[in-house]
Amino acid sequence: MSAVIIDGAAVAARIRDELAGDVLAIGEGAAAPGLAVVLCGDDPASAVYVRNKGRVAEKLGIRFQLHTPPASSSTGELVALVRSLSDDPAIDGIIVQLPLPRHIEPDPVIDAVAPEKDADGFHPVNFGRLAEGRPSLVTPGTPAGCMELMRRYDVPIEGRRAAVIGRSTIVGRPMALLLTNAHATVTLCHSKTAALPAICREADILVAAAGRPGMVDATYVKPGACVIDVGITPTVDGLVGDVDRDSVEPVAGWLTPVPGGVGPMTIAMLMRHTVSLALARRHTAPV
Amino acid sequence: MSAVIIDGAAVAARIRDELAGDVLAIGEGAAAPGLAVVLCGDDPASAVYVRNKGRVAEKLGIRFQLHTPPASSSTGELVALVRSLSDDPAIDGIIVQLPLPRHIEPDPVIDAVAPEKDADGFHPVNFGRLAEGRPSLVTPGTPAGCMELMRRYDVPIEGRRAAVIGRSTIVGRPMALLLTNAHATVTLCHSKTAALPAICREADILVAAAGRPGMVDATYVKPGACVIDVGITPTVDGLVGDVDRDSVEPVAGWLTPVPGGVGPMTIAMLMRHTVSLALARRHTAPV
Repeated sequence: MSAVIIDGAAVAARIRDELAGDVLAIGEGAAAPGLAVVLCGDDPASAVYVRNKGRVAEKLGIRFQLHTPPASSSTGELVALVRSLSDDPAIDGIIVQLPLPRHIEPDPVIDAVAPEKDADGFHPVNFGRLAEGRPSLVTPGTPAGCMELMRRYDVPIEGRRAAVIGRSTIVGRPMALLLTNAHATVTLCHSKTAALPAICREADILVAAAGRPGMVDATYVKPGACVIDVGITPTVDGLVGDVDRDSVEPVAGWLTPVPGGVGPMTIAMLMRHTVSLALARRHTAPV
Repeated sequence: MSAVIIDGAAVAARIRDELAGDVLAIGEGAAAPGLAVVLCGDDPASAVYVRNKGRVAEKLGIRFQLHTPPASSSTGELVALVRSLSDDPAIDGIIVQLPLPRHIEPDPVIDAVAPEKDADGFHPVNFGRLAEGRPSLVTPGTPAGCMELMRRYDVPIEGRRAAVIGRSTIVGRPMALLLTNAHATVTLCHSKTAALPAICREADILVAAAGRPGMVDATYVKPGACVIDVGITPTVDGLVGDVDRDSVEPVAGWLTPVPGGVGPMTIAMLMRHTVSLALARRHTAPV
């Protein structure tokens, strides 16, 4: 027996196909959904991510606006830029690419995103809805992508145990909330967790989002478990995940590879959220 | 060996003493902090809770306003009332007593509370800040009271395992978030959780908030664990908790009794949050 390898690239391609029709139905040209990305600073990985987002958006017919305030910008200048995008009727979705330069406070910038344009789902109003178990249009893209992969591969979630390694706002925390809302029993693990492998070995679903290359080997994995590898660390040999694939593949029931697993899903979910926000705005607010 | 019984009534009394000075420093009479409670419908337990809140507030010198819209009110009428309190400069804290009558949607009513007057911490903006691990002035009163009890009894939290039974917005979910933010490794359990006693037996901190009288017996408890009983079910014999005290007391390291454990803390924390909100408003906004 060997794990089913979850093909995130193929699922993401299918989602993009589904979305292309939705975008066309909303409108073309100036009437198409509009996504604005704010990229501040010189982080090379961020530049790559943003370029990829732009490429996918344009393929789907989504209008893509890139704003690149200089790394020397102040928190106030970034807040003002994001507010102007929040007020711009031509924009349906806003993404503030993280991390921001060190001297900028991220919270006021994220709070300046209008909740109804919050494509990333990081505004506390949307994050709070998720945390309260209320329905919400947007949830953070990476964990939403993980949930979508599990659903498309019929991984049982309800009533199962899940362990999430890492408690970031971007992945670990929202992942634990999404799994709880889907009726899993979730243990949220982090740097202060003792006896981590033993906790993980009890999980039917193991989500690794620690950013520590290869830390999860077979001793962390319950036989037959679904192992989702969110860790992406750039190395000279390319992107490396948190999961030691050679060790885990013979034990797990499902496994997402790096690259080609969770990675492509994040952008696909961002695009889906942008389309959802565009639809919601056109059906509720006069533009 | 027998568990240390945590005296919530005594801790709550000490907090009230601490707060009385803070209230006096803010102002007396019309200048005192103002708390408005909205009680809609005929739930007898709610009427008792609200009466107790009023009594404590008045003892502390907090101005207490009780609003009792009829059970026949519409969602829109309640939203309008809460909005008017949000706009009223004489009000620092607002509580919408839950549960509301069945025909009223709670979410729009809760969302009408100005986040800076949200004494209960249920507005999604404040709940989201808690869920993201950001600093926040207010968190839901009952779990905040549980944390305060553990702190005052020097229960170790960081690096320990915790299990929370129940995933309500009022107790279980915010409790799990507060424990995670305090660096515990938390498992959030609920009605779909399999093998519940075994999971609980791994926990150094066990919080029972299921509302099922006596369900937690010694088979759920790791020797020496801190057991927090949030379950309060009214019976003909008075209030009954989720914990079977006779069974658990010889095994646990700490135990909150019912009554006299968590119960008195909820109101004390609500008062503390009202005072914090009053201080914040006086230091940031022109009234």
